[in-house]
Amino acid sequence: MKIGIYGYGNLGRGVELAVRQNSDEELIGIFSRRDPSAVKTLTGVPVYSADNILDFKGKIDVLVICGGSATDLPLMTPRLAADFNVVDSFDTHAKIPDHFENVDRAAKSGGNVALISAGWDPGMFSLNRLYASSILPDGKDYTFWGRGVSQGHSDAIRRINGVIDARQYTVPSEDALASVRAGNNPELTTRQKHTRECYVVAEPGADLERIEREIKTMPNYFSDYDTTVTFISEEELKRDHAELPHGGFVIRTGKTGMNGEHKHVIEYRLQLESNPEFTASAIAAFARAVYRMSGRGNTGCKTVFDIAPSDLSILKPEELRAKML
Amino acid sequence: MKIGIYGYGNLGRGVELAVRQNSDEELIGIFSRRDPSAVKTLTGVPVYSADNILDFKGKIDVLVICGGSATDLPLMTPRLAADFNVVDSFDTHAKIPDHFENVDRAAKSGGNVALISAGWDPGMFSLNRLYASSILPDGKDYTFWGRGVSQGHSDAIRRINGVIDARQYTVPSEDALASVRAGNNPELTTRQKHTRECYVVAEPGADLERIEREIKTMPNYFSDYDTTVTFISEEELKRDHAELPHGGFVIRTGKTGMNGEHKHVIEYRLQLESNPEFTASAIAAFARAVYRMSGRGNTGCKTVFDIAPSDLSILKPEELRAKML
Repeated sequence: MKIGIYGYGNLGRGVELAVRQNSDEELIGIFSRRDPSAVKTLTGVPVYSADNILDFKGKIDVLVICGGSATDLPLMTPRLAADFNVVDSFDTHAKIPDHFENVDRAAKSGGNVALISAGWDPGMFSLNRLYASSILPDGKDYTFWGRGVSQGHSDAIRRINGVIDARQYTVPSEDALASVRAGNNPELTTRQKHTRECYVVAEPGADLERIEREIKTMPNYFSDYDTTVTFISEEELKRDHAELPHGGFVIRTGKTGMNGEHKHVIEYRLQLESNPEFTASAIAAFARAVYRMSGRGNTGCKTVFDIAPSDLSILKPEELRAKML
Repeated sequence: MKIGIYGYGNLGRGVELAVRQNSDEELIGIFSRRDPSAVKTLTGVPVYSADNILDFKGKIDVLVICGGSATDLPLMTPRLAADFNVVDSFDTHAKIPDHFENVDRAAKSGGNVALISAGWDPGMFSLNRLYASSILPDGKDYTFWGRGVSQGHSDAIRRINGVIDARQYTVPSEDALASVRAGNNPELTTRQKHTRECYVVAEPGADLERIEREIKTMPNYFSDYDTTVTFISEEELKRDHAELPHGGFVIRTGKTGMNGEHKHVIEYRLQLESNPEFTASAIAAFARAVYRMSGRGNTGCKTVFDIAPSDLSILKPEELRAKML
C-alpha cells in the first residue's frame, strides 16, 4: 500500500512516523506547498512540490491530506479526491455535512474513496459516542477533553498585544467527571466541565494585568470558563511545555430493565503524550481501510462510521477471530 | 424490524426488555423448549414452542438465540441460521473459529446473515482490542474483568458437597491496573491480574474448612488466584448478592515517535449493574445491523468486526454525521 502525505506540518510529520509502524504501508513521498529543497523530513523520504501531485496519479494508493480545517481542507480534499483515494482529519464539527457533500461528489466523479474526519475527535471519540448510544438508547453522553494543549486557544493568546508565546491546557473537571461516572446524569454548563490553564510569555515591560484581563474576558475562547493565567519565561515554556499532549473521555450512562432499575457506564479514555502523532496513527489505520474499500469497488465519501473495523487491522479476518474476538 | 427470541433465560429476558428501548424493533414472540403455557414473560409477549419455530420462517427478521455456549449454541445457531437471520452471543473464545465455519456454511445455504459472539466480551471488548491495536501497532493490550459475578465460577462452587448456594465475584487488581495505565507494559500472571471473592451458603453442620479448601484448590477455577471465601446465610445472599453486575477494562498502551518517545493509553471501561441486560442491549443494536445487511443482500456468518458502526444506530447516516461525528 503506497501512501503519500500532502502537507507537512505536525500532523504530516506524525503520519511520516506512523507509516513506519505499519509493515504493509510504504511512504512514497511528501507533497509540500513550500520549496521542496527547503523541506527537511524526519526520515529522509523524498519531498515534491504540491503542484506536481497529479504526476503521481496511479502511483499512490492513499493520499493523506494534512491541512488545516479552517481554510485548507474544504478546498484540498474535494480537489484531491477527484484523482486519489484520500484521508483527511477535518475537525470543524459544524461544517462536516457540507464537507461530506463536496467530497462525496468529487470522490464519486473520480471513482475514489475519500475518508473525512479521521483521528480521535472527530474519529475514535465519535465512534464511541455512536456505539454507546446505540447500545444504551435510554441514556446520556458526555465528552470531556484534556488534560491537553489546545492549539487554537494557544494561538488566540499569542494574538494579544504584548504576548510573545503561550500554551493553553484544557483541563476536565474532576468533580464533573465523578458525577457523570456515578450515573447522576448531571446537566453541566461549559464552566462546570472544563477549566483552562494558560502559560504566557510576555514582552519585557508589558502590562501583565491587561494581558490577563484580555485573556479571561475573550469571548468564545475563555469568557465562559474558569481560566488561570501564569506568566513564565521563554526558557520555562521551552522546558516544561514543549510537548503537545491531549486526550479526554467519552462517557455514556444509561439504564435498562423493567423500570430502568439497572445503571450502566461506558467509558472511553485517551491519554496521549502527542496529539498529532496519535491522530496520525489513527489515520494510518484508516488509510488501510480506504485502500481495501477502494479495492472492492467502493467509491464516494466515507466517515469512520462507515468502516467495518476488520478493515483497519493488518491481521486477516480469520486471525482477528482467533486472536481478538 | 420483527425480532424473535429463541431461549428464555436471563439473556432472553434481557433481550425482551432491550427490544422495548428500540422504537424500530418489535418483539414477535419467545420460543422456548419448555411447555409454553408454563413460561411467564416479563412483558406479556406470546410464547411458542421452540419445536414450531419453522412456522415463523419469513415472519421474523432477526432471531436472537439465547442459549448456552457449551452445548446449546454450537448446535442451535447453525441449524437456525439456515432459515433465519440470527444473532448469538457465543462466548467460548477458543471455539469461535469452528463455530464461525459451521454457522457460515448454514447461513450461506439459506441466504441469511448470522452474527455470532455479540455482547461485551466477546463483543465490545473485542472491538476495542481491534481498534486500539490497529492504531497503536507498537503496543500491548490488557483485558481485566470485574468487579462482577462469574456465573461459571458460582456454579463450580455450588457443585461442592455441603454447599447450598454461592456467588463468586471476579475483582481486577488495582495495582495491576495502575501499572498498566502508567504505561509500564508489565508482564502479569493470572494471580496478579484478578482476585476471586466467594460468598458461600453452607448446609447446617457442614465442614466449612473442607469447603473452603476445596474451593481454593480447585484447578482452572481458583487454584491460580488469590481467593477469599466468606460464609454467609441464605438471607444475606438474597439481600446482598441478588444482582448480576459485571464489567471490566480493555487497555492498550503503545508508543509513537521517532524513537518511541511518546506513550499513549487507550482505555475502554464498562461498569454494568446487570450483565445479561447489557449483553442483551448490545445484541438489540447488532440485530439492527444484521437486518440491514441482510436487506442489502449480504449472507453468511459475521462477527462484530464485520459490522460498519453506522448500521448499529437507529439514526440515519446524515444524522450521525451531523450529531455524533
